[in-house]
Amino acid sequence: SSQEAFRIEYDTFGELKVPSDKYYGAQTVRSTMNFKIGGVSERMPVQVIRAFGILKRAAAEVNQDYGLDPKIAKAIVQAANEVAEGKLNDHFPLVVWQTGSGTQTNMNVNEVISNRAIEIMGGTLGSKKPVHPNDHVNKSQSSNDTFPTAMHIAAAQEVNEVLLPGLKKLQNALEGKSKEFSQIIKIGRTHTQDAVPLTLGQEFSGYVQQIKYGVARIESTMPRVYQLAAGGTAVGTGLNTRIGFAEKVAAKVAELTGLPFVTAPNKFEALAAHDALVELSGAMNTVACSLMKIANDIRFLGSGPRSGLGELILPENEPGSSIMPGKVNPTQCEAVTMVAAQVMGNHVAVTVGGSNGHFELNVFKPMMIKNVLNSARLLGDVCVSFTDNCVVGIQANTDRINKLMNESLMLVTALNPHIGYDKAAKIAKTAHKEGTTLKEAALKLGFLTSDQFDQWVKPKDMLGPQ
Amino acid sequence: SSQEAFRIEYDTFGELKVPSDKYYGAQTVRSTMNFKIGGVSERMPVQVIRAFGILKRAAAEVNQDYGLDPKIAKAIVQAANEVAEGKLNDHFPLVVWQTGSGTQTNMNVNEVISNRAIEIMGGTLGSKKPVHPNDHVNKSQSSNDTFPTAMHIAAAQEVNEVLLPGLKKLQNALEGKSKEFSQIIKIGRTHTQDAVPLTLGQEFSGYVQQIKYGVARIESTMPRVYQLAAGGTAVGTGLNTRIGFAEKVAAKVAELTGLPFVTAPNKFEALAAHDALVELSGAMNTVACSLMKIANDIRFLGSGPRSGLGELILPENEPGSSIMPGKVNPTQCEAVTMVAAQVMGNHVAVTVGGSNGHFELNVFKPMMIKNVLNSARLLGDVCVSFTDNCVVGIQANTDRINKLMNESLMLVTALNPHIGYDKAAKIAKTAHKEGTTLKEAALKLGFLTSDQFDQWVKPKDMLGPQ
Amino acid sequence: SSQEAFRIEYDTFGELKVPSDKYYGAQTVRSTMNFKIGGVSERMPVQVIRAFGILKRAAAEVNQDYGLDPKIAKAIVQAANEVAEGKLNDHFPLVVWQTGSGTQTNMNVNEVISNRAIEIMGGTLGSKKPVHPNDHVNKSQSSNDTFPTAMHIAAAQEVNEVLLPGLKKLQNALEGKSKEFSQIIKIGRTHTQDAVPLTLGQEFSGYVQQIKYGVARIESTMPRVYQLAAGGTAVGTGLNTRIGFAEKVAAKVAELTGLPFVTAPNKFEALAAHDALVELSGAMNTVACSLMKIANDIRFLGSGPRSGLGELILPENEPGSSIMPGKVNPTQCEAVTMVAAQVMGNHVAVTVGGSNGHFELNVFKPMMIKNVLNSARLLGDVCVSFTDNCVVGIQANTDRINKLMNESLMLVTALNPHIGYDKAAKIAKTAHKEGTTLKEAALKLGFLTSDQFDQWVKPKDMLGPQ
Amino acid sequence: SSQEAFRIEYDTFGELKVPSDKYYGAQTVRSTMNFKIGGVSERMPVQVIRAFGILKRAAAEVNQDYGLDPKIAKAIVQAANEVAEGKLNDHFPLVVWQTGSGTQTNMNVNEVISNRAIEIMGGTLGSKKPVHPNDHVNKSQSSNDTFPTAMHIAAAQEVNEVLLPGLKKLQNALEGKSKEFSQIIKIGRTHTQDAVPLTLGQEFSGYVQQIKYGVARIESTMPRVYQLAAGGTAVGTGLNTRIGFAEKVAAKVAELTGLPFVTAPNKFEALAAHDALVELSGAMNTVACSLMKIANDIRFLGSGPRSGLGELILPENEPGSSIMPGKVNPTQCEAVTMVAAQVMGNHVAVTVGGSNGHFELNVFKPMMIKNVLNSARLLGDVCVSFTDNCVVGIQANTDRINKLMNESLMLVTALNPHIGYDKAAKIAKTAHKEGTTLKEAALKLGFLTSDQFDQWVKPKDMLGPQ
Repeated sequence: SSQEAFRIEYDTFGELKVPSDKYYGAQTVRSTMNFKIGGVSERMPVQVIRAFGILKRAAAEVNQDYGLDPKIAKAIVQAANEVAEGKLNDHFPLVVWQTGSGTQTNMNVNEVISNRAIEIMGGTLGSKKPVHPNDHVNKSQSSNDTFPTAMHIAAAQEVNEVLLPGLKKLQNALEGKSKEFSQIIKIGRTHTQDAVPLTLGQEFSGYVQQIKYGVARIESTMPRVYQLAAGGTAVGTGLNTRIGFAEKVAAKVAELTGLPFVTAPNKFEALAAHDALVELSGAMNTVACSLMKIANDIRFLGSGPRSGLGELILPENEPGSSIMPGKVNPTQCEAVTMVAAQVMGNHVAVTVGGSNGHFELNVFKPMMIKNVLNSARLLGDVCVSFTDNCVVGIQANTDRINKLMNESLMLVTALNPHIGYDKAAKIAKTAHKEGTTLKEAALKLGFLTSDQFDQWVKPKDMLGPQ
Repeated sequence: SSQEAFRIEYDTFGELKVPSDKYYGAQTVRSTMNFKIGGVSERMPVQVIRAFGILKRAAAEVNQDYGLDPKIAKAIVQAANEVAEGKLNDHFPLVVWQTGSGTQTNMNVNEVISNRAIEIMGGTLGSKKPVHPNDHVNKSQSSNDTFPTAMHIAAAQEVNEVLLPGLKKLQNALEGKSKEFSQIIKIGRTHTQDAVPLTLGQEFSGYVQQIKYGVARIESTMPRVYQLAAGGTAVGTGLNTRIGFAEKVAAKVAELTGLPFVTAPNKFEALAAHDALVELSGAMNTVACSLMKIANDIRFLGSGPRSGLGELILPENEPGSSIMPGKVNPTQCEAVTMVAAQVMGNHVAVTVGGSNGHFELNVFKPMMIKNVLNSARLLGDVCVSFTDNCVVGIQANTDRINKLMNESLMLVTALNPHIGYDKAAKIAKTAHKEGTTLKEAALKLGFLTSDQFDQWVKPKDMLGPQ
Repeated sequence: SSQEAFRIEYDTFGELKVPSDKYYGAQTVRSTMNFKIGGVSERMPVQVIRAFGILKRAAAEVNQDYGLDPKIAKAIVQAANEVAEGKLNDHFPLVVWQTGSGTQTNMNVNEVISNRAIEIMGGTLGSKKPVHPNDHVNKSQSSNDTFPTAMHIAAAQEVNEVLLPGLKKLQNALEGKSKEFSQIIKIGRTHTQDAVPLTLGQEFSGYVQQIKYGVARIESTMPRVYQLAAGGTAVGTGLNTRIGFAEKVAAKVAELTGLPFVTAPNKFEALAAHDALVELSGAMNTVACSLMKIANDIRFLGSGPRSGLGELILPENEPGSSIMPGKVNPTQCEAVTMVAAQVMGNHVAVTVGGSNGHFELNVFKPMMIKNVLNSARLLGDVCVSFTDNCVVGIQANTDRINKLMNESLMLVTALNPHIGYDKAAKIAKTAHKEGTTLKEAALKLGFLTSDQFDQWVKPKDMLGPQ
Repeated sequence: SSQEAFRIEYDTFGELKVPSDKYYGAQTVRSTMNFKIGGVSERMPVQVIRAFGILKRAAAEVNQDYGLDPKIAKAIVQAANEVAEGKLNDHFPLVVWQTGSGTQTNMNVNEVISNRAIEIMGGTLGSKKPVHPNDHVNKSQSSNDTFPTAMHIAAAQEVNEVLLPGLKKLQNALEGKSKEFSQIIKIGRTHTQDAVPLTLGQEFSGYVQQIKYGVARIESTMPRVYQLAAGGTAVGTGLNTRIGFAEKVAAKVAELTGLPFVTAPNKFEALAAHDALVELSGAMNTVACSLMKIANDIRFLGSGPRSGLGELILPENEPGSSIMPGKVNPTQCEAVTMVAAQVMGNHVAVTVGGSNGHFELNVFKPMMIKNVLNSARLLGDVCVSFTDNCVVGIQANTDRINKLMNESLMLVTALNPHIGYDKAAKIAKTAHKEGTTLKEAALKLGFLTSDQFDQWVKPKDMLGPQ
């Protein structure tokens, strides 16, 4: 019966029942008892677990170089690989809201790999023989250096696999639209008010630039994310490791991931602070600002269909209202802006955690990496969704654009160099008050001739310097 | 085969395949296709789904009063009840990152209840007959008023079921400790430096007060959370509802939940803004500050075992280190402070979302409620965990406390009223420099007699006004 | 010469030169030497200085009851009054970025009052006789209780004198507009897209409700702001005070300010935490969200003059552009939204400071009060500016409003109860695609008769439940 | 009399009285009337005004190349220079809380330079002849490109003149201490609990690394701050400028400032978004986290004098308490942490502003630059103050450090490789419970010999890998 489906394991605090079908051990069970906070949706992100698999494999291989029994090393490598591939995700039940060093997740990993390796070698689960979770799987390691190492591996992978591809995809789509719209002259808007014209392509080129710089911003923070704490062990000194261990582990991780990881030049900083993640989060916060701006613009430019600005026609993806039939909403823009707000919030959580380390260890680690990974994933995913379901399908409503542009009073700006600011202002104000065209007002005021107006006020000539 | 296990449903955009074993319909499927953002862990919180069940039941009962076919109403009520009880959670696959009005989740609910009610009535799933998701389940409603109603129901329930009980439990435990420690005189610390004495019970009484006020703060925001948008429909006017509908639905919800819900006096505000949730989030942010302070104090006062302040002995709950044998860490404090940081971050996300509503609708709804619920749950849970696994087991290390108190130089403050601030300062500085006791320094400087010192410097007399 | 215009004063650290024309003393000078941070614009807010004047007067009067020489008390009262009235502002040169307890500002106040009182009594500046800054002016007090007392007095006064009057003024102005616009039916907008109609008065009523609740939010936090730390002295015990001192001082402050101050029931909390200010800041953060929403709406509704929504005509207050003649911008809305962003930022600073108190003292006091006062002042001032220079002058552009409303496709929602959601949706989509009116589409599709359409689709009937 | 000390100036809105002794004109006066928000302390930062002086000089010189009358250009250059040198600061009364484009400050600058140039050329103030504020001083410019240009110039100068020098000074001081303390072995602390040893020099090396990376973080954002919007004019197109104007102005500014400014490659982005400042603010936010961590560590390590950790002796700079004689507080650390909290708050304000640009213009400009400059200044100043008044004077309390280190139970970690984790844990727990030394416990348990203990447990050998 299910009540009997347990084995007994122990840690330094005593014995505990462990479900027979799980590889984890006593310390993992103990954590589930002590930290009933938030439930299943608050589990340690799988990206962290997979990163641990990579790290434990790398450490085992390097430990073998330094004398670890090759049979044990081989079994650890195989088990760690399974963790890295996500095959053992069900064996990681712990929540983020545990000890702030992530020790319990490190032990969860050690226990799972130890038991799986024991199984591979034909031993008894929970016996800690021939593969001990601390003495073998965690050899030359401490939670204090493995957890931050896993944090950096997980963050770097999420950035490279989800965030940057998402941003680049969006950048390309916006670039395509910028070119497609390069000949469409439209009214500009500053202070949300009518202003001088530009092309729709120029408008989109600003968005392209924001995303392009967003990519650059993320990338400029990565050199410090690629630095790994492994080899620092308990307080950063590297106690209980061998000279060269840190460098070799970083090299192995780089090899396994294809990312340019190196060993952190100062392990004390790497354990006690997570400035590199605060910095990365800050770059994502900037990207969130860019996306909020772009998505807001697109939904306002696409507002209508009859009572909005109506310059853009956005793809219709789903029914928009449960009460208003036929309504279509800029839902992708809404997902983007919600994600942006979340990333800004996540950033503050990361900042508060990052600022509160003490002495040799920052103990906001699980919370920090949860938020960093969440931001990276949401930003990357929403860029893809926004691109596929909105940006690529945006059409210019050229009739509307032309109408608005031609009615605009702000074309008067073209007269500044010819008649001066004060007279030009008088023309615009007169036209506005009397509801006439600029030309009618200009002629009525006698500031110029009809020919002069036609020659000076050409939207096409207002799109750049002369 | 699984490929055939689909039925065809349609929405105003066309046909879609729906898994046969699910009650949801075309609009839900469409949303899963359009919003691949964040994955399973980013699903709409179940508290929102359950709140929708309550609302839909209440609406059906009121609609029956206004003429809805009782057979249909009855089936809707039964189906909605199952949603409210969490029995149909598997039928709600949508993520938070959808349309900002939550329309798709409202339709998910409408579809599930409609199909389940159809099933109850013996009809064909997906036929929309005899129970139509819009015309019957959503009758007199719009996403624009139902989603905020569900937000408020969910938030109020989480506050009452998780947050407030958690806070009160912690308050009680701290109060118990404050009484238990009422006779233990210890050194005070200001600026992290030695200061005049107080009792350990007094120190804990400050924590009690913080949590007690935290409860008051949360409660003081609830009157506005208890106001429901239902009856506002699309823009707040109540179009397509009947006079009295709003009031009756709120009364039904109050009855079903046992919470004092009322109809919002102004529906325009209730749809277009979510200030009430920003306010609630702000109160939780204050509670987070309190908890951060208390947990920091407790871990510093419990620091050691030999090189810290060592005034408190915290319960040992688990092995503390994967490399340092025998180490015990204040892990519950760490969970508390991580939660506090998260709540501060969530609050900024809620603030950014709350500030960006436009015209008749705020479209950051799913993101806002996700964060509010997360904060409430994490705070409530962590209070329980902290209480059970740390606070109730805290012991005073009286030997250490006495030793530190008696060595303190700040007892000199008791001399101020007798010899003045300047002379008292000279005594303290002398003792500090020469490593002597205060009394030795005082006598050496000749500022008072031995008897005077003994009479004037009594820690027990320094614990209150005279 | 100016080089000689110094007198010598001393503190426990030694002698220092003090400008002859200043009342402050050695500790103030020492602080200016040790904290060269930010310059003049970062000085301690004058509201804090004035609040200190009130407190020091109250303390002197109560100290006299407990035996302080009436002549000294009288001189202190007179000098403190001058501080309270802002007459001695030039004598407070210290910046916010000093010790986190505000000790140096408390000593600055003690020194100024002491020297001014000495002057009143005919003594020699800097002699500390007959009025000693510590032994007399600071009698029964500590920086640790006086500074938080001054924080609460200053915050409460700014809230009552600037913030609440500003909010109420704005509320009244919006209420006036809501009534003025009560008969103007306009198109609603949800998701920034066309929606069903409401009156412009209804739209403004939502803003009224937001501000009204904003007032309620602020007021609901004040009971805890009205609690004063005075009487707690160094660590909250009340050491060196007399029984009753705390209560009497609070009563005096209440009398002097006309505000319902009371003594804090727990002084340990009142010194070690500033949750009350985090809470107040949170309420202001909610108000900032409300203002951001309202100001955004108004500028978008007033956008144009020809290519925007154009439903509102905002007052023209100044030339809008240095290059685009005749441009008028919603500048008051811009000031409002900038203030809102600042308040959100200030709130995070307050939150971070509030969460980082340690043991018996929070040492982020000057930073916290600076931000709280800044938020209160900016919000109050900007409400007045926004009201006077924008809200009261807003006009409805009824021609434009009518035109948009009548063209709207969303009036189709009125057909839901008659022909069902799906058919209504078909009508709207047909009209949209073919550029026709709803009626034309409805008749073409044969879903109803012309008479039915006219009878069912009446904007005036869509403004409320039936 | 003072009532007569006015001249009449006009703008497109009409006439206004301008104080005779001021160079500003009607638009400035109008702004002071319309924006009574916050008072004198909320004035536009002087760094922005000085930056405008540089820009206006550069523009005049380039305009001369393109045909501006050399006499006018020369007068403008001279007047602009005076603005750049801060000589005319009294003529800039406007507050930050004005139009969100900063138009009124641009006009304030144009008016002051125009009138001062008119004066230089012998004309009549307010006549706009021969130097017109718009047609000459603002020639080829718009507020929309000049204000962001001034923002970038001001930010870059503050970063280079205050922030980076401050950080580098602190880095050097910490580096000196790290070397000075390189031989002092001390107990480490993780989770605020005793851990394995490291040197005090190693501990400080972590701080050095944080600050060093802080410098790198700031610098890595600067390439985008060095890009100037000038030449974009109203919406980014460069309307009313000449080809080459943008590049030449940037080159002139680079020459005048000695900083590598270039023209922004995309002016649309440069006007509509301020991502570059959000990014810079994010880097400063990371630095704030670093400083918070370092200052917290130093105050805790210096806590005492008798009841704290007591490992560091911090300089005594001032009397610490108005009631506790002889108390010395870590006041510089407190200023640092308060600044850190402020910078985190400023960052959120910048983020909110940066995310809310619309269409061709972000209108949170003055608020954003105010916060960016405030963060840069406070961080730079506080680094200098912290260095001079605290860091350079820090002494190691070697007696205390040795005592704590030798009593530590965590030295047991050195036994892991020899006897395994589980046995080592038993030793530590036994010693802890029985209050004995590790060696006594180890021998009692019979896990090793006395010689083995002495050979294996050597703090000096625990400071690095082997």
